[in-house]
Amino acid sequence: MALGSGQMGGPLLTVGSVALDSVRTPFGEVVEELGGAACYASVSASFFTAPRVVAVIGEDFPERHVARVAARGVDLAGLQRVAGKTFRWLGYYEYDLNQAHTVRTELNVFEGFRPTLPESYHTSPYVFLANIDPVLQLSVLDQVRRPKLVACDTMNYWIESARDKVLEVLARCDIALMNEAEARELVGMPNLISCARQILDYGPGVVIIKKGEHGSMMLTQDSYFTAPGYPLEEVKDPTGAGDTFAGGLMGYLARCGETDDSAVRRAIICGTVMASFAVEDFSLDRLLRLTHEEIAERYHDIVAMTRVEAM
Amino acid sequence: MALGSGQMGGPLLTVGSVALDSVRTPFGEVVEELGGAACYASVSASFFTAPRVVAVIGEDFPERHVARVAARGVDLAGLQRVAGKTFRWLGYYEYDLNQAHTVRTELNVFEGFRPTLPESYHTSPYVFLANIDPVLQLSVLDQVRRPKLVACDTMNYWIESARDKVLEVLARCDIALMNEAEARELVGMPNLISCARQILDYGPGVVIIKKGEHGSMMLTQDSYFTAPGYPLEEVKDPTGAGDTFAGGLMGYLARCGETDDSAVRRAIICGTVMASFAVEDFSLDRLLRLTHEEIAERYHDIVAMTRVEAM
Repeated sequence: MALGSGQMGGPLLTVGSVALDSVRTPFGEVVEELGGAACYASVSASFFTAPRVVAVIGEDFPERHVARVAARGVDLAGLQRVAGKTFRWLGYYEYDLNQAHTVRTELNVFEGFRPTLPESYHTSPYVFLANIDPVLQLSVLDQVRRPKLVACDTMNYWIESARDKVLEVLARCDIALMNEAEARELVGMPNLISCARQILDYGPGVVIIKKGEHGSMMLTQDSYFTAPGYPLEEVKDPTGAGDTFAGGLMGYLARCGETDDSAVRRAIICGTVMASFAVEDFSLDRLLRLTHEEIAERYHDIVAMTRVEAM
Repeated sequence: MALGSGQMGGPLLTVGSVALDSVRTPFGEVVEELGGAACYASVSASFFTAPRVVAVIGEDFPERHVARVAARGVDLAGLQRVAGKTFRWLGYYEYDLNQAHTVRTELNVFEGFRPTLPESYHTSPYVFLANIDPVLQLSVLDQVRRPKLVACDTMNYWIESARDKVLEVLARCDIALMNEAEARELVGMPNLISCARQILDYGPGVVIIKKGEHGSMMLTQDSYFTAPGYPLEEVKDPTGAGDTFAGGLMGYLARCGETDDSAVRRAIICGTVMASFAVEDFSLDRLLRLTHEEIAERYHDIVAMTRVEAM
């Protein structure tokens, strides 16, 4: 399928954070730059389908950031601007870029965030619930009418503080996305395959576990798929890689309109490709100057790097 | 290519340790069981080609262990039995099976090991140098006449104590095998792809980096390949996995007689398959009851689990 702005499946609604990130890595530093799961996922998805966002920002959120996201064709009808300061994350990475160190999280307006979908979003066929409070994820699901495909992410904080609600969300999702540590914490078993199998029993038909530089794996009742990480020699900032992955994955599925095993595999490679670009620069800088040709080339690279003949 | 006992390429010579391993994992324990890199690699290779071994054992080494290895068709003309006790390793694993904890290493007769190849081994076309002292690895290379393909492994101890000699070995090898931590330590860079590229510059045409449960990657001047780990829900004992991988890899190459990119990729999958069986039981127990049908089935599984269509 050729890339482009057309859609066979329909728009992708993402609900999550929009943030001002201050990040330091061994390769540089940015202060209060554009970030947040909903930004990374939507901009990533914009290369495949029409994204729409439900999120909240404060009065201090720079208009130029809004403009950059809007320029990618992201529908911002659901972006609420309210009194107060925008959500901020301050963190750093050392040479082990797999490990984010949080210095400070300022929830600010995000603390009172209650996702309210504009009327035009109620029929969103594709939904990605980023790693916000599972109670809010559930309220979004209550507002969309018969979505075609729902994916959710979560994080250790919610697994520890609201496990029952996380399970409720999983029971209503088609695709569960999480990283290795989250899967192990949610299930309480050391073996990742056993964890993935258990998560399938919680309800979703597809479980995708992100393993950072080691790629990802997908498990369904009758299929197992592994995708490698894209081999990068220069990673500047891994912030947002997981959300960019999710945006590419769901964006591709929203574009192709299929949900069979082969489509999900292709979508995982698209997610891998998008994440590989995201980490090449700080904030969304690399994503915002990306081309469809670059995406297609890297997709082809990954297919080539896993190719093996029969014995 | 069908599996079997025939050979197109020729025999595989392995030089390394034969040991009595005492291992405890969360799933059981064995005391003074058959182990050592040369055993794992040769028995693994025996499913593909005719293996031969140069190693040393003490007077106390049980004859039944010799018989079990010989029963797999391993040529033991180069197995020296000398006065003294056999090399012993005592270790354990906790739930993170990627991390071996050594309690005690007793070199015993291994301390005075000087590999001397029987006349019949001098023309060995395929050579695997397991992770022994690089000075000994070099002495083996001095004894074989124009081998067709040489692979070497190493370990942190030699990288730290005899780096120059390790580099000398690498310069004379076709395939360098090592794990992630060893590659990073040898090169001194955090990025694994950069490390692999640097190791290519040391001389070998192929660098293969083993990543435990995350699989492996191969880099050459013009190719990059990633193989996933085989998804196992029950791992009893990871001891010997890397040597079993090397044995399957080199055994396959020795059998098919080819050394092009496609052959090395297939060989890596064979190594992955063999290692996946080795860890399912203690010592060489699983390998010694393995069938060619099981190998072929798991090879096919891995091809299926990485299959993805064009975008």
